[in-house]
Amino acid sequence: MKLSILTTGGTIDKTYNEYDGNLRNSRTVLDEILGGLRLPDLFIRHVEVLHKDSLEITNEDRQLILRSVRAALPNSDAIIIVHGTDTLSVTGDFLHKELPDLNVPIVLTGAMRPYEFRDSDALQNVIEALFAVTLLEPGVYAVMHNRALRFPGVMKDREGMTFKKTSRRKTKERGR
Amino acid sequence: MKLSILTTGGTIDKTYNEYDGNLRNSRTVLDEILGGLRLPDLFIRHVEVLHKDSLEITNEDRQLILRSVRAALPNSDAIIIVHGTDTLSVTGDFLHKELPDLNVPIVLTGAMRPYEFRDSDALQNVIEALFAVTLLEPGVYAVMHNRALRFPGVMKDREGMTFKKTSRRKTKERGR
Amino acid sequence: MKLSILTTGGTIDKTYNEYDGNLRNSRTVLDEILGGLRLPDLFIRHVEVLHKDSLEITNEDRQLILRSVRAALPNSDAIIIVHGTDTLSVTGDFLHKELPDLNVPIVLTGAMRPYEFRDSDALQNVIEALFAVTLLEPGVYAVMHNRALRFPGVMKDREGMTFKKTSRRKTKERGR
Amino acid sequence: MKLSILTTGGTIDKTYNEYDGNLRNSRTVLDEILGGLRLPDLFIRHVEVLHKDSLEITNEDRQLILRSVRAALPNSDAIIIVHGTDTLSVTGDFLHKELPDLNVPIVLTGAMRPYEFRDSDALQNVIEALFAVTLLEPGVYAVMHNRALRFPGVMKDREGMTFKKTSRRKTKERGR
Repeated sequence: MKLSILTTGGTIDKTYNEYDGNLRNSRTVLDEILGGLRLPDLFIRHVEVLHKDSLEITNEDRQLILRSVRAALPNSDAIIIVHGTDTLSVTGDFLHKELPDLNVPIVLTGAMRPYEFRDSDALQNVIEALFAVTLLEPGVYAVMHNRALRFPGVMKDREGMTFKKTSRRKTKERGR
Repeated sequence: MKLSILTTGGTIDKTYNEYDGNLRNSRTVLDEILGGLRLPDLFIRHVEVLHKDSLEITNEDRQLILRSVRAALPNSDAIIIVHGTDTLSVTGDFLHKELPDLNVPIVLTGAMRPYEFRDSDALQNVIEALFAVTLLEPGVYAVMHNRALRFPGVMKDREGMTFKKTSRRKTKERGR
Repeated sequence: MKLSILTTGGTIDKTYNEYDGNLRNSRTVLDEILGGLRLPDLFIRHVEVLHKDSLEITNEDRQLILRSVRAALPNSDAIIIVHGTDTLSVTGDFLHKELPDLNVPIVLTGAMRPYEFRDSDALQNVIEALFAVTLLEPGVYAVMHNRALRFPGVMKDREGMTFKKTSRRKTKERGR
Repeated sequence: MKLSILTTGGTIDKTYNEYDGNLRNSRTVLDEILGGLRLPDLFIRHVEVLHKDSLEITNEDRQLILRSVRAALPNSDAIIIVHGTDTLSVTGDFLHKELPDLNVPIVLTGAMRPYEFRDSDALQNVIEALFAVTLLEPGVYAVMHNRALRFPGVMKDREGMTFKKTSRRKTKERGR
């Protein structure tokens, strides 16, 4: 399987600066994560699109992400986008709207705690995203914390520190 | 989702004895692994069925595993079986034959290197198994190393130190 | 050996808050570190004196640290103080001046990178401090990065991101 | 400080073979350990003398260790020997007898649990050995588990899974 991974920054990639004690997006940890995994069927191309906290991602940045996805699509069986969680659902909705005729899955993932921390959720989420693209139907998804949520209708659940499907839950509640 | 996890031992659970320097199956590391993950939708029941190297699993042990699966089925949305890799495919074939009318997925997983080792594949495989049961159709599967392989026709690939689907490869070879 | 460990906060203890993405001093990681070590001869008493970035430690806080040291001294064979690196040398100089007749070693240690990070120097520095108190003569020391530096004359080396002995270097330069 | 480290194998260096499930001495993990530490004052030369379980170390092997120590001494401020624990005290006694006029410290260390295991004591012991050589008087020592024990009279404490000083304790008790 040919997989394109686009990294944009986000909490998952924040690294610690010993001079000023701050956490910043300066490099991506993706290759460090991939280096520890066993992925015999995957051929991966990694593109570093941005190194930004997702609160700072502008409309122009989203156009750049879209162009990067379009450039990768003809040659990819699936695409993973590593993204900050604060505006992950904005980018997911945007891609879902702009790419109506997808024939591969696009999975957005990230983390609530930077990978550099011992108790980060980054490794779990990346493993899940890598596994999800082997099984999911074409479409745009957020994958994190043992869930695959399909756009549209995905939002950050700030109380639970995860993502949730707004519309599906409403539908379910109505259905009962 | 209500998930039953049956542990039987295997390489994944082998722990080091400092007195004699041996690796043995004496306890399960599953709860330690689960403790580090974020699984907000899963309600998990963990049953320790066996603590055995899978080369020592007898036909009677397999009957015990089958009875444990049958006991769990009425109340479970999915079942994961943690199993040694040497005879994982024997148990998978056996369960596939004995449970023809499954309406939930049963996923067998394990590891090539004990979880206690820093560079073990155990965490990856357990995360994948936990994610797979949320997406897979009913059936019996081996999940490991970014792959979900459906029984029958799954075997250990001793050269690649992973699992493969025998029938698929034969078909491919015929096709050439 | 009876060892008192006083924790005051500092970089070593900073933990990540997932709600706002900040690093803060809210709890001490010392017991987590000690739990992973083999220290058959040590009997440890741990006192949480402060939970502060050392840039925020006031003169009153230093009086509190001094009182805590004096309270521990009669019953301790050694004292370790876990402290932020930015003003560690201020506290070390203060204790050296206020405690002229020490008959046990007092070791200040800390870290350039919080313990919660995978590549932190915290574990190394705590192991060194715990080992240093078994060998050092009475006096006040900074122990970190394979060095035991005796007060007075210890300062943070901001370029090297470690500590150095000012007076010794001057002497050496004169000697050449 | 110029430090020579001689590795001989031992539990600390045992690595897992996925094909047969055995633990073996085939390579040294020392450089991996050193890579994670901050040692600004140390200039290290690493010599791989043996790759053996210490139960298999012969008299000829000990002669080789002695020759390696003698070769390193003229150019070293200290020597660390990484050694299996089962016969560490045999090698320590031998070096103590053969090197009566030492003017640098020689520290033997090792581990009860291979470094590859998450809960190994290897990192602690290597950090302690590296710190000990900056403080210890000339002589031959075992350093492990927060202790520096001087030869002769050091033996493995099989119940406590550590090392102890036989003669010194008796002497101390008599002295009181």
